[in-house]
Amino acid sequence: MKQYYSYEAFRDDTKKLIHKSKVFKPESIVAIARGGLTLAHCMAEGLNLREVQSIRTELYDKETKREEITLFGSCDFGNKTRVLVVDDIADSGETLQVVMSYLQSNFENVEFQSATLFYKKSSLYEPHFWINEANNWIEFFWEKDFL
Amino acid sequence: MKQYYSYEAFRDDTKKLIHKSKVFKPESIVAIARGGLTLAHCMAEGLNLREVQSIRTELYDKETKREEITLFGSCDFGNKTRVLVVDDIADSGETLQVVMSYLQSNFENVEFQSATLFYKKSSLYEPHFWINEANNWIEFFWEKDFL
Repeated sequence: MKQYYSYEAFRDDTKKLIHKSKVFKPESIVAIARGGLTLAHCMAEGLNLREVQSIRTELYDKETKREEITLFGSCDFGNKTRVLVVDDIADSGETLQVVMSYLQSNFENVEFQSATLFYKKSSLYEPHFWINEANNWIEFFWEKDFL
Repeated sequence: MKQYYSYEAFRDDTKKLIHKSKVFKPESIVAIARGGLTLAHCMAEGLNLREVQSIRTELYDKETKREEITLFGSCDFGNKTRVLVVDDIADSGETLQVVMSYLQSNFENVEFQSATLFYKKSSLYEPHFWINEANNWIEFFWEKDFL
């Protein structure tokens, strides 16, 4: 079953997520594109953070049928030490797990925490901050309103 | 005078901007962060483009009082040849002019065009695609709804 997720619901939940994430005192944000872009933008405004970078992943089916995620985009955090990684949903959790592991191993002096609007209990990765448990297929307003 | 720009207005204008931009047949999108992130995300959904990258600028006051823009973020377009650069507004136009010039000189085989929701007549750069002329100070919903 598809569940339409409107801008109004997004606005209210994002304000809650901003409030929750403040305990981490993030200095910079990494958006996972595309899904995390709008959320990262709005959280950056609410948290008053100017630095938003993005990273993109692609899932490949290898010949062996094992899936492999490739990351695109390089990050630079300067002297920042607390970075929030933002995506819309932790569904399988694979993307977030790969991104978090990549970032942490490449930037040892930075602490990374993650935030999503939705979290599926079956996800292999649980974000530090999340708002709703996802039981249905979420259809975000950005996936629907611009077609 | 401040003019609040709601999600509903954004949604309607972005659909128009998606329609206008289709003539360029973009294969990839660059968002100028922060302002262009939500628009780039929604345009990518409407244009069915998976590749969204972001670039960030900072304006510095140099000692000589001349302003200088520094760019953060590196792009990679693979074999793509038509890339749409997206920002919320061409106000002074300085950011867009610097970004477009930087991208074009660094990726000679790529054609770049630009799209914004607002364009101020006094801007020193006019985007290829824009929707509204800006006469007031625009207060975008992402700047207001998450405070």
